[in-house]
Amino acid sequence: MNPKRAVGILGGGQLARMLSEAAARLGLRPVVLAESASDPAAQIAPGAVFGKLTEETVLRRFFSQVPLVVFENEFVNTELLRLAADGKSGFIPGLDAIAVLQDKLNQKRILDELMIRSAEYEEFSGEDLKKWVSQVSEKFSNQVVFKWARFGYDGKGTLVSPSSPAEAIRFCEKALEKNVRVFAERKIRFRRELSLVSSYSTTGELASYPLVISQAQTGICKLVTGPAIELGVSAKLQSKAEAHASRLARHISLHGSFAIEFFETEEGVLSVNELAPRVHNTGHFSLDCAVTSQFENHWRAVLGLPLGSTRTAPAFAMLNLIGPGDGNADAVPQPSARTSLHWYGKEEVRSGRKMGHLNGQVKNTTELPGLLDEMKSVDRRWMDEVLKAK
Amino acid sequence: MNPKRAVGILGGGQLARMLSEAAARLGLRPVVLAESASDPAAQIAPGAVFGKLTEETVLRRFFSQVPLVVFENEFVNTELLRLAADGKSGFIPGLDAIAVLQDKLNQKRILDELMIRSAEYEEFSGEDLKKWVSQVSEKFSNQVVFKWARFGYDGKGTLVSPSSPAEAIRFCEKALEKNVRVFAERKIRFRRELSLVSSYSTTGELASYPLVISQAQTGICKLVTGPAIELGVSAKLQSKAEAHASRLARHISLHGSFAIEFFETEEGVLSVNELAPRVHNTGHFSLDCAVTSQFENHWRAVLGLPLGSTRTAPAFAMLNLIGPGDGNADAVPQPSARTSLHWYGKEEVRSGRKMGHLNGQVKNTTELPGLLDEMKSVDRRWMDEVLKAK
Repeated sequence: MNPKRAVGILGGGQLARMLSEAAARLGLRPVVLAESASDPAAQIAPGAVFGKLTEETVLRRFFSQVPLVVFENEFVNTELLRLAADGKSGFIPGLDAIAVLQDKLNQKRILDELMIRSAEYEEFSGEDLKKWVSQVSEKFSNQVVFKWARFGYDGKGTLVSPSSPAEAIRFCEKALEKNVRVFAERKIRFRRELSLVSSYSTTGELASYPLVISQAQTGICKLVTGPAIELGVSAKLQSKAEAHASRLARHISLHGSFAIEFFETEEGVLSVNELAPRVHNTGHFSLDCAVTSQFENHWRAVLGLPLGSTRTAPAFAMLNLIGPGDGNADAVPQPSARTSLHWYGKEEVRSGRKMGHLNGQVKNTTELPGLLDEMKSVDRRWMDEVLKAK
Repeated sequence: MNPKRAVGILGGGQLARMLSEAAARLGLRPVVLAESASDPAAQIAPGAVFGKLTEETVLRRFFSQVPLVVFENEFVNTELLRLAADGKSGFIPGLDAIAVLQDKLNQKRILDELMIRSAEYEEFSGEDLKKWVSQVSEKFSNQVVFKWARFGYDGKGTLVSPSSPAEAIRFCEKALEKNVRVFAERKIRFRRELSLVSSYSTTGELASYPLVISQAQTGICKLVTGPAIELGVSAKLQSKAEAHASRLARHISLHGSFAIEFFETEEGVLSVNELAPRVHNTGHFSLDCAVTSQFENHWRAVLGLPLGSTRTAPAFAMLNLIGPGDGNADAVPQPSARTSLHWYGKEEVRSGRKMGHLNGQVKNTTELPGLLDEMKSVDRRWMDEVLKAK
């Protein structure tokens, strides 16, 4: 580390903001690469570098200041990063791990190698898209999900049970035009969606948070509750999930905090939905409801410090505050007694945009429904204000 | 609140830094008045105003940006603040409360009015200092503490059992030269020093954290453990302390988070040592070991939001990282598995300077000694590094 303890964060959004807070507390000097001074992370981390992650000159300026770099987003051009860093800045996780995991077809390949269960799939590699769509739809008895191999998030890049072959074809063509591969999966019949956040240190230490239950609205994570094993999920799945995390992390040197999103199938087994090689929305509860947050453990893992405890409150929840429509962001939620607000400071509210989140913890699971009501009511009052302001 | 939700913090030290973090999470835009960009708070709150708190033009520039102002330190010139704010910025707590509590003799008067116990005292109001020193020393049987009425902190402005009358006279003269009143107190024979942090909202709601045990080294708070009533302190003292906090807060409209430092006398009763009308070092544990921190509850109290829960971990500790000597601050402590680091980012280590703190929590009090060993070992390794670097 250089004397000023500068560390770089590629990106300026809310994940970079929460990583910056954690870094500053640990005595690091976070330098974010953001698009503008009003980006969530730039608001709290002075000395940001401004520009696009896709411009070599910007990247060179950034790397000249930071010997060590972490990611808030895996959708980066790893070749350009390698070129611009010129061997002078290190990346954690390494660019090889990022390059692999930014592509969902690579994820599938690795899961297959490790014999970790995920949905049956078939890549489009032929020439006749129409014929392929019809073939895979038949193969999976119309229980089919089409996916882009890259750039998918918050429901984007995923098409579940299209209403017509034409819709599937259009969806796939969009990806192919950008040179992104597409594939089809058998749609999993699941009880619940679960998520595991783990931190894997450069020392080899690995710590996992409890599995959580995650619920989406229109493809975007809305509510996370946990620990899952206090909410009806078998304790076996926790140890199974942790074992998967450990094998994956060691197999591809996936250092730092990372997430595995699972389906709990109707048969009660885990099937991996996707992997994220970074701090993750389903781990935001850890800011208030675990001894150590996923953000702090990211830095501990990166620096080779002992990982902090991942013990959590007996019952907890995280609710995403998602823009109900376009508008300005002067309407800020008013947290209730049992909810903590984490506001990201974005200048504009847009429909479907994550503006902040609420965390809350209670002494036992019987109090959880009351907490959820409280959270939803904070959310509702805020949404009303946003729409009124509009 | 103005559309940008700007809030002002008078000061740029570690308390301002932790207040800024809490403000940003709540969607406020903290503006600190700091002396330089390297001040702890200015490092994480862009848009700071730079200058001295004693300069009217600086204050006017600051107030023009912030409709609402809070304090990190009570030793301010309230008349100058009132003049410069010109009725346009509001202060919480109000300037009247600050003016009263910045003077320890005023604190004594209010405690007397409310019949809240504190040490017997006598003010120097005569002309012959030598004679007075001899009189009060005799009156209190040489168990005497001399105090400046203002500007005392971290053991400064307090002289316990002077070794000679001459030492007491010099100590008092220093204050009188600055127009600061002096007084003498009967030295309390105490079992422990306790501290209570409470938050009093502009809505009238009041919430107190558990009493904690605080231990000082050379007059500076070094270690805080709690909850006190899990560590041998009678539960009656908790309710007594909370009752004092409530009466004081309501009597002088002391809004926001504030602290009362107590002696638990040898007879097992509470005697107030002093009051601080702001977030306090003995409440730093709340950042990791309570559901809501004293910093967040300060803002909730100021804004009239519901106060967050003050429930804590079953057992917890906070250790101050205090400069062992002069040096540069490149040596940063390496937190262990059970300790969270809060580093303030000060550019220079000085002897007796608070550089950061460690928080830690455990499941029960029997694990506390082990946690304290861990904290002390992190502290020791860091101090060794500082002295080596020097």
